[in-house]
Amino acid sequence: MQLHLSTWIEVEAYLKTSKGIVMPIGSTEQHGPNGLVGTDAICAEVIARGVGEATGALVGPNIPVGMAVHHMEFPGSMTLKPSTLIAVIRDYVGSLAEHGFERFFFINGHGGNIPSIRAAFYEVYAEQRALRGRDAPDLRCTLVNWWENPEIGRLSREFYQGKEGSHATPSEVSLTQFAHPEAIKRVAMEPEQAPAGGFHDARDFRRRYPDGRIGSAPGLASPEHGQRLFDAAVSAIATQYRAFVAEA
Amino acid sequence: MQLHLSTWIEVEAYLKTSKGIVMPIGSTEQHGPNGLVGTDAICAEVIARGVGEATGALVGPNIPVGMAVHHMEFPGSMTLKPSTLIAVIRDYVGSLAEHGFERFFFINGHGGNIPSIRAAFYEVYAEQRALRGRDAPDLRCTLVNWWENPEIGRLSREFYQGKEGSHATPSEVSLTQFAHPEAIKRVAMEPEQAPAGGFHDARDFRRRYPDGRIGSAPGLASPEHGQRLFDAAVSAIATQYRAFVAEA
Amino acid sequence: MQLHLSTWIEVEAYLKTSKGIVMPIGSTEQHGPNGLVGTDAICAEVIARGVGEATGALVGPNIPVGMAVHHMEFPGSMTLKPSTLIAVIRDYVGSLAEHGFERFFFINGHGGNIPSIRAAFYEVYAEQRALRGRDAPDLRCTLVNWWENPEIGRLSREFYQGKEGSHATPSEVSLTQFAHPEAIKRVAMEPEQAPAGGFHDARDFRRRYPDGRIGSAPGLASPEHGQRLFDAAVSAIATQYRAFVAEA
Amino acid sequence: MQLHLSTWIEVEAYLKTSKGIVMPIGSTEQHGPNGLVGTDAICAEVIARGVGEATGALVGPNIPVGMAVHHMEFPGSMTLKPSTLIAVIRDYVGSLAEHGFERFFFINGHGGNIPSIRAAFYEVYAEQRALRGRDAPDLRCTLVNWWENPEIGRLSREFYQGKEGSHATPSEVSLTQFAHPEAIKRVAMEPEQAPAGGFHDARDFRRRYPDGRIGSAPGLASPEHGQRLFDAAVSAIATQYRAFVAEA
Amino acid sequence: MQLHLSTWIEVEAYLKTSKGIVMPIGSTEQHGPNGLVGTDAICAEVIARGVGEATGALVGPNIPVGMAVHHMEFPGSMTLKPSTLIAVIRDYVGSLAEHGFERFFFINGHGGNIPSIRAAFYEVYAEQRALRGRDAPDLRCTLVNWWENPEIGRLSREFYQGKEGSHATPSEVSLTQFAHPEAIKRVAMEPEQAPAGGFHDARDFRRRYPDGRIGSAPGLASPEHGQRLFDAAVSAIATQYRAFVAEA
Amino acid sequence: MQLHLSTWIEVEAYLKTSKGIVMPIGSTEQHGPNGLVGTDAICAEVIARGVGEATGALVGPNIPVGMAVHHMEFPGSMTLKPSTLIAVIRDYVGSLAEHGFERFFFINGHGGNIPSIRAAFYEVYAEQRALRGRDAPDLRCTLVNWWENPEIGRLSREFYQGKEGSHATPSEVSLTQFAHPEAIKRVAMEPEQAPAGGFHDARDFRRRYPDGRIGSAPGLASPEHGQRLFDAAVSAIATQYRAFVAEA
Ligand code: NI
Ligand code: NI
Ligand code: NI
Ligand code: NI
Ligand code: NI
Ligand code: NI
Repeated sequence: MQLHLSTWIEVEAYLKTSKGIVMPIGSTEQHGPNGLVGTDAICAEVIARGVGEATGALVGPNIPVGMAVHHMEFPGSMTLKPSTLIAVIRDYVGSLAEHGFERFFFINGHGGNIPSIRAAFYEVYAEQRALRGRDAPDLRCTLVNWWENPEIGRLSREFYQGKEGSHATPSEVSLTQFAHPEAIKRVAMEPEQAPAGGFHDARDFRRRYPDGRIGSAPGLASPEHGQRLFDAAVSAIATQYRAFVAEA
Repeated sequence: MQLHLSTWIEVEAYLKTSKGIVMPIGSTEQHGPNGLVGTDAICAEVIARGVGEATGALVGPNIPVGMAVHHMEFPGSMTLKPSTLIAVIRDYVGSLAEHGFERFFFINGHGGNIPSIRAAFYEVYAEQRALRGRDAPDLRCTLVNWWENPEIGRLSREFYQGKEGSHATPSEVSLTQFAHPEAIKRVAMEPEQAPAGGFHDARDFRRRYPDGRIGSAPGLASPEHGQRLFDAAVSAIATQYRAFVAEA
Repeated sequence: MQLHLSTWIEVEAYLKTSKGIVMPIGSTEQHGPNGLVGTDAICAEVIARGVGEATGALVGPNIPVGMAVHHMEFPGSMTLKPSTLIAVIRDYVGSLAEHGFERFFFINGHGGNIPSIRAAFYEVYAEQRALRGRDAPDLRCTLVNWWENPEIGRLSREFYQGKEGSHATPSEVSLTQFAHPEAIKRVAMEPEQAPAGGFHDARDFRRRYPDGRIGSAPGLASPEHGQRLFDAAVSAIATQYRAFVAEA
Repeated sequence: MQLHLSTWIEVEAYLKTSKGIVMPIGSTEQHGPNGLVGTDAICAEVIARGVGEATGALVGPNIPVGMAVHHMEFPGSMTLKPSTLIAVIRDYVGSLAEHGFERFFFINGHGGNIPSIRAAFYEVYAEQRALRGRDAPDLRCTLVNWWENPEIGRLSREFYQGKEGSHATPSEVSLTQFAHPEAIKRVAMEPEQAPAGGFHDARDFRRRYPDGRIGSAPGLASPEHGQRLFDAAVSAIATQYRAFVAEA
Repeated sequence: MQLHLSTWIEVEAYLKTSKGIVMPIGSTEQHGPNGLVGTDAICAEVIARGVGEATGALVGPNIPVGMAVHHMEFPGSMTLKPSTLIAVIRDYVGSLAEHGFERFFFINGHGGNIPSIRAAFYEVYAEQRALRGRDAPDLRCTLVNWWENPEIGRLSREFYQGKEGSHATPSEVSLTQFAHPEAIKRVAMEPEQAPAGGFHDARDFRRRYPDGRIGSAPGLASPEHGQRLFDAAVSAIATQYRAFVAEA
Repeated sequence: MQLHLSTWIEVEAYLKTSKGIVMPIGSTEQHGPNGLVGTDAICAEVIARGVGEATGALVGPNIPVGMAVHHMEFPGSMTLKPSTLIAVIRDYVGSLAEHGFERFFFINGHGGNIPSIRAAFYEVYAEQRALRGRDAPDLRCTLVNWWENPEIGRLSREFYQGKEGSHATPSEVSLTQFAHPEAIKRVAMEPEQAPAGGFHDARDFRRRYPDGRIGSAPGLASPEHGQRLFDAAVSAIATQYRAFVAEA
């Protein structure tokens, strides 16, 4: 059940059965020569919808632009400042809490978002304490990165045999190819697998990784892989969601 | 051309031909008994994509949650505080300006966003002046509400003969039925046309308009209307976009 | 009754009879060769006082500097960032609400303020909901632009026959000449009527309108016109104020 | 020369002769049984204008609402939060600095503003350093409280012989009676001189000083005193202003 | 009793006996050729601990970096923007108020902090009123500058005979030599006593006072003086603290 | 070399040899029955000083209060809101960058700080890009949690054999006992090892872990362990620091 495709009356009915909601959060940033700028937003959204279907959970609106300061030397990348992203999450959660939602399950598509999301949860908790004191509702926010579960790890190893890398990975590119087959890009990449490593700021990122990939071989991606990664992620995360809302 | 479905290399190439970008902005709020909570976000996004196809413009990511404080007594409605929405728009425009975009054409789906969007444009201009002084790039932001053009007005009169109303209108419901035929809701409404008028805060809104509609008869909506409204809006707004980017 | 010229004991007595207050808001910005930098602040204040006298309403302090980023290429222009102006209005309304005021009637002198004012109203509503929840007082804020009523439109056409323009207009200059006859400026202007049109940022404004006027012939202004415009505006707006505070 | 009564062309000419500007800042808060809510705003504005006339300095717009949280238990009192007041002063100074003003001489009417004003000066300096680095213009902001000079001290002792007090003082009430003879209030006060002392928060203020005065006997005020206080303050402060703008 | 060296159970017990807490606040900034960058933080902390021991008061954590924009041309100086410092103090006080602390006694080591601290107190009061209304706890914040009491003045005159100055003073250097004998610096200074005066921004400060001292002769400092200054300050301020918490 | 115990002239000299600085950051929060409220601040500071001695690095001032919203049901715990902590770190780094520091090595004592610290690094990077564009200095910030290295892990297993837990751990308590032997607390704890697990908000934390410990047996702590943990942490982190500043 997607919030955007529901009426308020349906939401009212839903709230009588559950106080949980799934919240996708992505990013809009370069993903190498054949990865889409919207990769992280698409992955988060598509998996969130899958989890919604698998569990009956309501799925809220996406946060399509995240924290991607370090990608800003590549055209098309966008970023919220961390302080802005915190304010957005605070307002999203705060709005839904007014209606009685209490369990916020964020499915994240971008590693760079993690600190701001976690900081935002505590900004929410602090604000609720300040506003309502000890009578504040018992809000619980949690964060799941779609790629961090054993099933995805296993498939990645099976498909890419150590060429997953850490940015513009074949897994995420596969997922977007599955979700948007009309937007599959055929691009030659040299070398097949990009160099791995860390980076400092945006200029340093571009100096070290001139085509945007880190340690990955996204030329190995395929929509068939994407389908299997999607199924595995949805299944694993649906289980996590069920546990989260069932928790005392 | 959608930013989310493009690679950074495609964006880099695009920037050699144009400095313009189309930015959809919607809202997530109740739209009466048969209108979707995502109505305004869907309308903005679908028309923005249409304009992108008609003009070759790049279409940026949506802002799916807008300023909807006055809808907050209806479950599922979400809102950013105006100050948060201003920060989001500032960061969106600021990010894209780093890459050389200079003409920002916002297609808006929600009347309640208008003040915050317009305020945000001046927040951007003020910040650019402060940061870069008289050497700041010549950024231009404009706002188009998809329903504010003669073609849409004419169709609305033809289809609904005075029962358009001002919230949860048959036009916007038709558009979402065209965009999402899988989510058409069949709901009886009493009276057919809701009472019209103004309102004050969120509680006052709900008191006056208990099912969420204002002055409208969204039971008249149909996906066929939606198709024609879509075609008309895209055609009218594509012309506006071309003029905007061609302006000296 | 002006707040600034009242004692707190008089305000306490007033609050037993009315919860309404008139709030002038202006701007400090260039108004062409013979218009005062304080034009918008003066117009808002003088009309607010007139409305206060006509209706017995309390008149609050002015906001003399508004949102005028687009005038900043002309010496003497001042601006608050939109986010600052929103904070100021939030604090003004919030302060007065602590004493029991509930109806805030802003009389505005400057078109550029409108988005920030309207955004501020919702910032106030959002904050009150957050702070007090459903027990928040029923605050109502409204905005009236002094020049937007049929009486003023009629006089402008009678006096200036299409040479009103949209910035540094003969109407507003007349009003300030009526209010401050000691500050009437005699300046030759070439051409009599400035070119009309739009503009983008502050530099673009100055490029297009080198003496600061847009579409107007403020050389036609006179204090006699000012008197008649004042009377008409006060009469029209006093009626609006009475309706606003009488509303259920 | 008042900014509000000048044209931008006059300001441009002024800037060729001086980079200094006088900025009044007041407050809107209870001033006891016969003191006006606008006392501090009126005093600052009237003296600033006097100093402008005496020195030829340009006088900027007032900040009529200051930091008066501690007066908020008395109807009609208004306050900006300190953080808002800092933002306002930052925007005022920042705006004027864009035109080339470099010496900002604030004439203050309210003790409670002092910390926020001084903090704001450093917010301005910090921001200018951040924005412009070592090439930032050499902005100088200073603060003068109109009552803090030997001449005013001497007159107060002559007129009130130890009954000046620290809030709602006969000096400031006299000044407003001189400036606004039409708003002189005749109110009996018991005792003639209010108790003196400190206070904590707003509730504590009202508990200790139920009619709003601290240590003062404002029944002794007269417009004649006001005239002499005005002359003395203008003369003393004009000298300070001349020294400020002449400083290397 | 230091908060940092206590357990929460000890704090819980303390709160049954007192609602007062001592809060040191310093600065990290140049203090001339032989003064430590941490001078103000060290002075505040060491005296706060002394007062804690003398009175049994709980001593909270230091704020080691204050508002020192004007020192920023000297390497090692650090500053919070005034708005940041206000937020920090608001959070410190707000946190402790959640546990029932009501009397906040700040011992300050740096003149430049005073406006921001005082502004912060009112930011706290305003926020508490907004959050809790008239049921807010009766929080009281006060500020004591360690050097502002007759005992310290007397010792300074005895030790330095007019060579105290106003920055990088022998008194504060002595105090740090007493607190940190391992960090006594032997540096020749020319002239023995620095020139006195005011300053504008950071660049102006460095131009006028090239070695960082203002009006002082810190070569006269000694750890023995430091001991006596410490004893005097602790004794004087302990008395002030006792009065503060005993106040009705 | 500690910044607080250095003169500005020594800092100036240091900057000719290194652009690196060590920054301790802690927290002020309950640490169970025998752990100090200042545990995390003390651990960060003491190790930072050790690393400074081992490497010759300059050590900046502590941030003694971090993000500890989840501990706020225990008396004495303090917290900055995440947004405040981000502002503090931004100002710390920004101040030091003005002097030419470029490598910021944060040694962290508290897991709850991690998201806000990481978010702050990107707030800094974003702000530097905005202010200076592609000419911004190449700032690099990194974060090291003192307990996250193999040496500490090994010692913990040797000393506590699975009773380390995740909050109020015997390792951190040992470290503070080593640093502050005068503040060792003898408290019986039941059970010896607290239950392990997660938690949601502050109230949930206290419900699940009524004495404040999570999974730990801090009764096993000793100052001798503290000494060995200190030596191991300093040695491991000094190596990391050297690599960080040597990096191209
Ligand atoms: Ni990705
Ligand atoms: Ni709509
Ligand atoms: Ni105007
Ligand atoms: Ni006063
Ligand atoms: Ni000092
Ligand atoms: Ni800890």
